[in-house]
Amino acid sequence: MPNNEKVLIAGEWRDADAAGTFRPINPATGETLEWSYPVSRRADIDIALEAGSAAANELLHTPVDKIADFLKHYAHLIGESSSELSKAANLETALPVSPRFVDIELPRTIDQLCQAATAARDRGWTMPTIDTATNIRSMHGPLGAPVAVFGPNNFPFAYNAVAGGDFAAAIAVRSPVIAKVHPSHPRTSQLLAEVAFQAIQDTGLPPATLQMVYHMAPEDGFYLVSHSLIGATGYTGSRHAGLALKAAADAAGKPIYLEMSSVNPVFILPGALHERGEEIVDELHASAMVATGQFCTNPGIVVLQVGDAAEQFIAAMRSRFEDADAGVLLGPGGVRVVGDAVQSMQSSGAELVTGGAPIEGGACRFQNTLLQASGEDFLADPDGLQEEAFGNANLFVVATDDDELEQIAGRFAGNLTGCLYTHSAGDDDLLYERIAPHLRRRVGRLLNDKMPTGVSVVPSMNHGGPYPATGHPGFTAVGIPASLLRFSMLQCYDEVREHRLPVELRDQNPTGNLWRRIDGAWTQADVMAPDDS
Amino acid sequence: MPNNEKVLIAGEWRDADAAGTFRPINPATGETLEWSYPVSRRADIDIALEAGSAAANELLHTPVDKIADFLKHYAHLIGESSSELSKAANLETALPVSPRFVDIELPRTIDQLCQAATAARDRGWTMPTIDTATNIRSMHGPLGAPVAVFGPNNFPFAYNAVAGGDFAAAIAVRSPVIAKVHPSHPRTSQLLAEVAFQAIQDTGLPPATLQMVYHMAPEDGFYLVSHSLIGATGYTGSRHAGLALKAAADAAGKPIYLEMSSVNPVFILPGALHERGEEIVDELHASAMVATGQFCTNPGIVVLQVGDAAEQFIAAMRSRFEDADAGVLLGPGGVRVVGDAVQSMQSSGAELVTGGAPIEGGACRFQNTLLQASGEDFLADPDGLQEEAFGNANLFVVATDDDELEQIAGRFAGNLTGCLYTHSAGDDDLLYERIAPHLRRRVGRLLNDKMPTGVSVVPSMNHGGPYPATGHPGFTAVGIPASLLRFSMLQCYDEVREHRLPVELRDQNPTGNLWRRIDGAWTQADVMAPDDS
Repeated sequence: MPNNEKVLIAGEWRDADAAGTFRPINPATGETLEWSYPVSRRADIDIALEAGSAAANELLHTPVDKIADFLKHYAHLIGESSSELSKAANLETALPVSPRFVDIELPRTIDQLCQAATAARDRGWTMPTIDTATNIRSMHGPLGAPVAVFGPNNFPFAYNAVAGGDFAAAIAVRSPVIAKVHPSHPRTSQLLAEVAFQAIQDTGLPPATLQMVYHMAPEDGFYLVSHSLIGATGYTGSRHAGLALKAAADAAGKPIYLEMSSVNPVFILPGALHERGEEIVDELHASAMVATGQFCTNPGIVVLQVGDAAEQFIAAMRSRFEDADAGVLLGPGGVRVVGDAVQSMQSSGAELVTGGAPIEGGACRFQNTLLQASGEDFLADPDGLQEEAFGNANLFVVATDDDELEQIAGRFAGNLTGCLYTHSAGDDDLLYERIAPHLRRRVGRLLNDKMPTGVSVVPSMNHGGPYPATGHPGFTAVGIPASLLRFSMLQCYDEVREHRLPVELRDQNPTGNLWRRIDGAWTQADVMAPDDS
Repeated sequence: MPNNEKVLIAGEWRDADAAGTFRPINPATGETLEWSYPVSRRADIDIALEAGSAAANELLHTPVDKIADFLKHYAHLIGESSSELSKAANLETALPVSPRFVDIELPRTIDQLCQAATAARDRGWTMPTIDTATNIRSMHGPLGAPVAVFGPNNFPFAYNAVAGGDFAAAIAVRSPVIAKVHPSHPRTSQLLAEVAFQAIQDTGLPPATLQMVYHMAPEDGFYLVSHSLIGATGYTGSRHAGLALKAAADAAGKPIYLEMSSVNPVFILPGALHERGEEIVDELHASAMVATGQFCTNPGIVVLQVGDAAEQFIAAMRSRFEDADAGVLLGPGGVRVVGDAVQSMQSSGAELVTGGAPIEGGACRFQNTLLQASGEDFLADPDGLQEEAFGNANLFVVATDDDELEQIAGRFAGNLTGCLYTHSAGDDDLLYERIAPHLRRRVGRLLNDKMPTGVSVVPSMNHGGPYPATGHPGFTAVGIPASLLRFSMLQCYDEVREHRLPVELRDQNPTGNLWRRIDGAWTQADVMAPDDS
């Protein structure tokens, strides 16, 4: 199939061993775009695994400065190509070039890569622990194997398998990446991968440090994540595909980190509702409409307590939703997903407040949709009403009293975030004490008086949470250095001769400012010889 | 069944809902002991889950000092009962009262509980990360749910589900424990649990902080580890049972930490073999014979390079093995396990050097057994020759040259440990550079010039490793505070009002000496208000 675009495997752009082809769609028009991309067969995966494995060995011996230089150079080249990249992504996602791409997502992508470069260089993620009395030393170290990364449809840059957070984390930890990009934006991914490959060549990393295919059959995905040569997998996407990959990886004992789905409950307690309901309507509307609601941290379910204030709040949101143009979704599949979720919630007892139907015409659009259910409805079918509607559809749950509010909080599954809005002077504090513990054990990030959609890339960020938001509650996909730990293993050295230790564990502090836990205290000092101390 | 011993559920010693009964065996005589223990039905598990869940809620609000007091008090009471406990354990395991129990395992058990008490009090395991510019704060926090612990047969105290490392770690992280003790030593476990329950009552912890059953059907184990009310599971035992539990927990998205099996390869490189072969024979013999070889870190496979020195080494080990009395194994099952593994290795090409058969008579014994295979044999069937023989049977693999030695190193599955003995003056250094990277990615703890059987309980210890030694390469079952992280989740607070934060994340350092990563630097200081800095 000569007209197919090429895959990046084993250090070169080459024809895929293709089982078929697909073309991306412009969601703003519904039109099929001009390029044709291959669906890779298992032969491509096998070559990528072998080449990735060899590159992993090389990367174990590559100076960290070189890895950091690559990450920074790649970030720089993305910046230089931002106009072309943004246009391509806009064509495939309908997300706006500005502000979304050039002002927000590309700067974040560049910042993440630069932070990963710093992390690779400063090595803080290794968290060395040294006990001098026993001469046992341990750290988080590289897997010495390639990492598979599956990218989602909703962030063509910041979560792209060839440029996003998982990519940056894996590379910083010396693992080459075998990327399965999202087939909704292959052209954007191809352009990004070209930039990445240029940066790899410019900085002299092993050519197979990044490999990329556009698509593969589910069985080949299972094969990839469970293969003996793979170190670990990072996945962002739907729960359905995520759980299937998880089952395959789990059965093979291979770590897999998944960010799958989240309805991100927002509890607006009565005092806050009375005190500043209108203000919160503004915040909720802005948060719910970002990227037509296609955010992992979209505030999907808002819980209120029955009364005039709740009615006014819902009426105000309804006006906002009805007055706003419905944004374009990421593709025809996105329209189906929202429609299915809305129908499913209705069959579980929710009533439509507004919207509820696809919008005819070329663009992939769905009416801005609000649903409402009583607390009783929710408690009768909490699973049915917690289906993620990935897009511009949100559910209100209206509880009768404090007790029901608490019961509702206790029936949420694992989520990335949970928000509590409370009265500024403390009127809601007693109720907060009842609700917060339920949310705390169910969400990765607990917020006060703030919507969940902003995800700062700072060390303390947790973009994770209990199952089924992710596959493990101890890890985060965002926030450096913590996100790097997913692609590491705990490595202990027991009486290993000093010159054979990784530099992070030798007596002398390798950078002069690496934080290490020596004999129980965090320090940037060298390990003292017994006669020095 | 009135003669059954009672289970500890929901804060009381009560009759089990029993599906059947079993009696422990004295492995030194083969005689069935006098007590009769129940196999719990699912009803017992359900009650334990409900009570454990309620206790978890209480423990979230229990002062850490009280939790620490319990752990220390329990440790103290174990010390007071050490004579009675040791006798009971000796009767059920045939391991010697002295030195094994009173001089080694009980002191270690007591030390672990005391270390866990300190960890609970000093909170260092929470590793708070605070970013002041965004006011985002995160830490490892409690699951707020009970932890299931499955104990092994080989450490009736240090890994007992009611007293060992998993128990201590879970309690320190505020999770009540639902213990399934090993049915080979129910009486020891019962006595320990009585001591624990006394300590719980003395210190006023929730009565269901510890619950214990002796046995259950496999399906009820799957039910327990995958139940919505369980927080996580710790398991130490056979690979077969571990993998079945893992499948159940994985499918439900519940964290499970398993220590399953390990052959702990020991490479004795040619320089070391020539330099000090006799000395290493002493070390290997001592390490291999500890507890009749029933250690997770037993040096199961020793890799040598062909030649006179290797022949002398193997001959010397053969003499040692033949001269030594065969120790008693933990039970009739243990004899079968060793026999099956020895047969299986033979069918995979290994030859018997000595031993190879059970010893007739009342005691549960197997001949001290050595096997030998060529490097070619090993490379032809690496899985078959890596079967763990849990007991006094060890395999030599004899490689023809450096290349084959390296290939062998590259075919080991995940292990807890890997050892490299090398010439003291550096004659083996080039070969070390070839072998060590293969072992590094395959083992949790890499040792130089030292056998693997000593597991120090220090912060830098990693008693873990890649699958199938465990279920995840990032965690350790031994070493505090790291072992506590298995029973935690990452909890982030985004603009949460200060008085609502856990004390670990408030501006003021809660203990005055808790290490926290504030704006990228580890410090024991308070968070500075913006105008202070």
